[in-house]
Amino acid sequence: MSITSFHPPVRTLMGPGPSDVNPRILEAMSRPTVGHLDPVFVGMMDEMKELLRYAFNTANELTMPVSAPGSAGMEMCFVNLVEPGDKVIVCQNGVFGGRMKENVERCGGTPVMVEDDWGVAVSPEKVEAALKANPDAKVLAFVHAETSTGAISDAKTLSALAHEHDCLVIADTVTSLAGSPLMVDDWQLDAVYSGTQKCLSCVPGLSPVTFSQRAIDSVTSRKSKVQSWFLDLNLILGYWGGGGKRAYHHTAPINTLYALHESLVILQEEGIENSWARHQKNHEALRAGFEAMGLDFVVPEDQRLPQLNAVSIPDGVDEAAVRAALLNEYNLEIGAGLGAMAGKIWRVGLMGYASNQTNVLFCLGALDALLSGMSAPINSGVAVEAARTAYQ
Amino acid sequence: MSITSFHPPVRTLMGPGPSDVNPRILEAMSRPTVGHLDPVFVGMMDEMKELLRYAFNTANELTMPVSAPGSAGMEMCFVNLVEPGDKVIVCQNGVFGGRMKENVERCGGTPVMVEDDWGVAVSPEKVEAALKANPDAKVLAFVHAETSTGAISDAKTLSALAHEHDCLVIADTVTSLAGSPLMVDDWQLDAVYSGTQKCLSCVPGLSPVTFSQRAIDSVTSRKSKVQSWFLDLNLILGYWGGGGKRAYHHTAPINTLYALHESLVILQEEGIENSWARHQKNHEALRAGFEAMGLDFVVPEDQRLPQLNAVSIPDGVDEAAVRAALLNEYNLEIGAGLGAMAGKIWRVGLMGYASNQTNVLFCLGALDALLSGMSAPINSGVAVEAARTAYQ
Repeated sequence: MSITSFHPPVRTLMGPGPSDVNPRILEAMSRPTVGHLDPVFVGMMDEMKELLRYAFNTANELTMPVSAPGSAGMEMCFVNLVEPGDKVIVCQNGVFGGRMKENVERCGGTPVMVEDDWGVAVSPEKVEAALKANPDAKVLAFVHAETSTGAISDAKTLSALAHEHDCLVIADTVTSLAGSPLMVDDWQLDAVYSGTQKCLSCVPGLSPVTFSQRAIDSVTSRKSKVQSWFLDLNLILGYWGGGGKRAYHHTAPINTLYALHESLVILQEEGIENSWARHQKNHEALRAGFEAMGLDFVVPEDQRLPQLNAVSIPDGVDEAAVRAALLNEYNLEIGAGLGAMAGKIWRVGLMGYASNQTNVLFCLGALDALLSGMSAPINSGVAVEAARTAYQ
Repeated sequence: MSITSFHPPVRTLMGPGPSDVNPRILEAMSRPTVGHLDPVFVGMMDEMKELLRYAFNTANELTMPVSAPGSAGMEMCFVNLVEPGDKVIVCQNGVFGGRMKENVERCGGTPVMVEDDWGVAVSPEKVEAALKANPDAKVLAFVHAETSTGAISDAKTLSALAHEHDCLVIADTVTSLAGSPLMVDDWQLDAVYSGTQKCLSCVPGLSPVTFSQRAIDSVTSRKSKVQSWFLDLNLILGYWGGGGKRAYHHTAPINTLYALHESLVILQEEGIENSWARHQKNHEALRAGFEAMGLDFVVPEDQRLPQLNAVSIPDGVDEAAVRAALLNEYNLEIGAGLGAMAGKIWRVGLMGYASNQTNVLFCLGALDALLSGMSAPINSGVAVEAARTAYQ
């Protein structure tokens, strides 16, 4: 055996995440490792919490990054808030609602499913009916921005309904954080998790979370121990909790936290409203290009995420061959469909650093050239011009 | 709020981990991010598994890094192997045996504790007695190298005893991997977890694990679902499993995996036996220096880990002030005591890249200067010379 250093190609990442990482973030991550109990590291953690509060629009004291990917952030929300026997209303309109259901079941809870078609927003009417039919429900869980379809749901309305029925709210904001308006306090979301590799344009591996006082009260008054030691908020509070002495819990992923800190500094420099506006503007240009070509969006116009654009594959096109050609000839990654959408859609991400004019025009040009070369039924040669016009 | 980029100081890390990271690894981590389903990334993952098999001395197919720190690796072993009602014999001779007990309880299992004093190896006689007294036990769990005390236990003998009594073996090798001989196949260890921030000198955040066929058979024949979705081996097998199609499970921490790959390439270049010998040699020099000063080791000589040197605080010395002065005046981090050892010992790590002559002499010189400046009851001025002699 003789394996040598790994040198990845330089891709443009326009799939569902990871998105292109800002070079500033890659550089920050390679700074010298310090100890996880070093006072300078502890000071950086305090800044991180403040920066995350800015990104989440919250004053929640318990706002921090979980030392693992978004799916562990999801699990942290469920294992802490759901006890055996608890009833949880779970909205499903894509892949990730299904994963929430799995989480409820593994906590010994009872999921009550509210199903919507993949590609549309969660229906507030269905949610209200489920809340009325299940007055003993403890939690309402939904995905704010479905990464598998590109649909955004009305988190504010869903949360208000939940609180009218005395339910806590768990919200998946993996793809919305920093890309679409997200107001944790105004909307009264109780347990919120996200990811670093989407609109924060950081490397993957961490899951920012934030918990309201209502959520913390629920955790501290549990009858049973949290089933996960690694994700037990009672223990993590002692580590990430405010001021004073930190209890050792686990060794934090120091350098990845440098990266997240830098990405949040960049977000603060741009201003979060400006980040939302930039995502919207680039989406509109990409949409103009796709529409000119004749590619159809999966999601109705008023429910589309600007950062994740799902379009149907034109008839007769070998979608995997197109993605492979984009990757091999253009070093450009776009996403395939997941679950029920596999083989039917492409998912084109414009997330964080990757949400820019260069990427929009590059992607449209490459896709146009490939599809017309394959005699796909599209209007070729008009996409880039339409996007360029949209920018003017 | 205006928070700026974080620029850490350059420390020398001689605590219980993280250890100094090889600059090659920091550079590797900052290479361009690719997608987690990109064929070149999948190829890198295959190399990673092969490199980890080399480090663990195993042919186990299921050998991979968990996308979270060592405590999540520990939890993965327990949640997959322990079902409600299962009896687990847990050896405790430091902090981490206690964490294993917590894990067993949170899985609904019954821990049977085998207690040894902190600072000595696990007693095979006590383990044998516990196995005889508990013929219904399913698992024996122990820590190979106790990071809280610096004691190494006889994993080969403990494992042989477990198998004589039809028990599976869970072994914590967080601090032993790459620093002390570890033979997963020869010793028939079934579920083994480690960390990246100790003798691999990689950044923290990942937990290499390896599972024997016996362990996998136990997982696939479970009566109940694994309580953790994120750590369920049945799902992770579909992602990290050999060849063919990868099922999406979670977004891998791409750049941290670049770092681990590089650290394993470095280990392969050095040769694992050479790495073990280097850790031993530097330990002997540090020991010569400590003994010349009059600092006493906590662990009996034949049970000492070369990579983690625990010594008692001399009478009348303010141990926290010494650590603070080392950090502030020398940029040198050494470790405090954990749990029952807090305030009583220092833990000086010589792990991975940090296990070298420069660090040994630097640490001895700095500690000697500080302690003699504080009028501590030590023989001052002789430590560095003793270590230098040991190197000859």
